[in-house]
Amino acid sequence: MAQSRPPAVERLAVIGCGLMGGSFALALRKACAVGRIVGFSRSAASALRARELGVVDEVAADAATAVTGADLILLSVPVASTGQALAAMREAIRPDALCMDVGSTKADVMAAAASALGPRIDTFVGAHPIAGKERAGVEHADATLYDGCRVILTPTAQTHPERLARADALWRSLGARVSTLGPEAHDAALAAVSHLPHLLAFAAFRAVATQDDAPSLLSLAGPGFRDFTRIAAGDPALWRDVLIANREQVLDQARRFRAELQTRESALSAGDAQAVESLIAEASAGRSRWRLGG
Amino acid sequence: MAQSRPPAVERLAVIGCGLMGGSFALALRKACAVGRIVGFSRSAASALRARELGVVDEVAADAATAVTGADLILLSVPVASTGQALAAMREAIRPDALCMDVGSTKADVMAAAASALGPRIDTFVGAHPIAGKERAGVEHADATLYDGCRVILTPTAQTHPERLARADALWRSLGARVSTLGPEAHDAALAAVSHLPHLLAFAAFRAVATQDDAPSLLSLAGPGFRDFTRIAAGDPALWRDVLIANREQVLDQARRFRAELQTRESALSAGDAQAVESLIAEASAGRSRWRLGG
Repeated sequence: MAQSRPPAVERLAVIGCGLMGGSFALALRKACAVGRIVGFSRSAASALRARELGVVDEVAADAATAVTGADLILLSVPVASTGQALAAMREAIRPDALCMDVGSTKADVMAAAASALGPRIDTFVGAHPIAGKERAGVEHADATLYDGCRVILTPTAQTHPERLARADALWRSLGARVSTLGPEAHDAALAAVSHLPHLLAFAAFRAVATQDDAPSLLSLAGPGFRDFTRIAAGDPALWRDVLIANREQVLDQARRFRAELQTRESALSAGDAQAVESLIAEASAGRSRWRLGG
Repeated sequence: MAQSRPPAVERLAVIGCGLMGGSFALALRKACAVGRIVGFSRSAASALRARELGVVDEVAADAATAVTGADLILLSVPVASTGQALAAMREAIRPDALCMDVGSTKADVMAAAASALGPRIDTFVGAHPIAGKERAGVEHADATLYDGCRVILTPTAQTHPERLARADALWRSLGARVSTLGPEAHDAALAAVSHLPHLLAFAAFRAVATQDDAPSLLSLAGPGFRDFTRIAAGDPALWRDVLIANREQVLDQARRFRAELQTRESALSAGDAQAVESLIAEASAGRSRWRLGG
C-alpha cells in the first residue's frame, strides 16, 4: 500500500477516546503528521487512560474545549450519540476545520450531523473505516488499524468538495483504501456484508450457548466455529445502535438470508444430496475466489 | 502441548491422499515414528501427487494392496464412501492392525464400518480430528495440522479396548487433545458447533453473492465478513456427505438457530433498542470468554 505523506494537522481533537479514535491518533502520530492531540470522552476514565498511554497529549473538560482551535476533529462515539456530540461542539468548530466520524451507519449519522451542525455541516465528512477488532477501548488502539483498511466516505449535497478531498487524502495517507458512496447506498451495502453477519453470529453463538450441554459443546468447537463466531464478541452498545439505526436494511437482508437457509433445509429434509452439493458448490466456489481487498 | 514419543508404526496405509490423510502421514514422518507409508486414492492423480511431494513412499494399485501388511490404516475419504472403501480392503486388513477414519460424522461411519468389516470391526476406531483448513488436496497437507487439534474418538461396544488405547496414544503423540464420545453424541454436538455453522455460512455467502450489486458489496466487505464466511469455502462433496448423513441433527439445530434469529428480528422490527442490546450483550460476553481449546 503506497503511502503518501499525510497532510499536516496542527491540532487533532478526538471526541470519544476508544479503539477507533485512539488508533486514528496513533496512526497520525506515527506518520509525524500531527502537532497536538486533544482528547475528550464522556467517560473521563477513558480520556485519562488515553493520556496515560500517550495516545492524546491532553484531556479537555468538554467537547467544545477539545475542538477549539482544532483543524481536524475525529468523532468516535456510538452512532446514536452523533447528534448530541456534534451539537455540544458546534459553536467551537473552526470554519476551516475538517470534522469526520467513524460510525458504521451513515444515513442516520448524516441526518444527525446536518441537524446538529446547521451551517457548520460544510466541515463534516461522514467516514466509515471497516476495521475489524472485537476488543473495544483505547488499550487496544493500534497505529496500523487503518493500514490496508477499506474506508467509505459518504458525501451529501451539503459536503464541501475541499473537505471531501482532504478526508480522502488523509485516510489514503494512513494506508486506507478509500471509496465514496451515498449514505443510503452505504447502509444498504453494509447491512449485507457486515450488519446482518453480526446479527447472525450473535444468534448462532447464543443458540449454542443456551443448550443444556453448552460447556461440552463449546469445548468441542474448532477453528471453524471460532472464526464464524468471532464477530459475536462485538460491543453491545455499538451494535445496538448500528442494528437499530439500519434496521430496515438489516431486516431486508435477513429475509434474503432466511430464503437461502430455507432452500438448504428443504434439500436436506428431502435427503437430496445432489441439490445440497450444488448449493454448497456455488457458495464454496464464490468464497474461494473472494479476497479481502480484492 | 506436551508430546510423548509416538507409538512406532511399521507400515502406514493412507487411503485417500488428501489434506487430512496427507497431513497425518507428514505428522508421523516428522515424529520419525513410521517406517513406510503407502498411499491409495480413487483419483490416481492425488496419490501420484502425494508421492511426488514425498508424503507417501509408494502408491498402491488398489486399497487392498495398500493395506496389506499395514499395522496402521488411515481412511480419509468422504464419509459416504466409508463402507465401500472398507469393504474393498476388508480381507487384506491385518488382524492386529489399527484402522481409523477422519470423518466429520460418526453414526453413519460406525454403522458402515460394522457392516463392511464384519469380524474385522475390532480393528476399527472412529476418529474425528476437528482441524480447520478450507483448502482441500495433498498440496495443502501440513505436518502440524493436528498439533493442538481436538480429536474425538467414537468407540462402540464392538471397539477393541487395545485399539482404542492405541488410537488415543497416537493422536496425543501428534499433539492432539483427545476426547471420547459415542457416535450419536458426537453427531449431535458437531451439528451444533460445526455442521450448522457451515450451512449458515454457505447460505449467508450466497445470499450476498446473488444480489444484483454483488461485486460492489463484496468489495466493501471487511475482516468480519472474511472470518464469518471462511468456512463457506468448504469442499462441496465432503460437506454434502456430512450434512446429508447428519441431517436430522442439523435440522434440529437449524430450528434452534431460527428461533434465536426470529427473537432478534422481532426486537429490531419493534425498534426495541434495550432488547437488542441485551440480546447482543449475552452473546458478546459468552463469545468473549470462550477460547478455542479452553
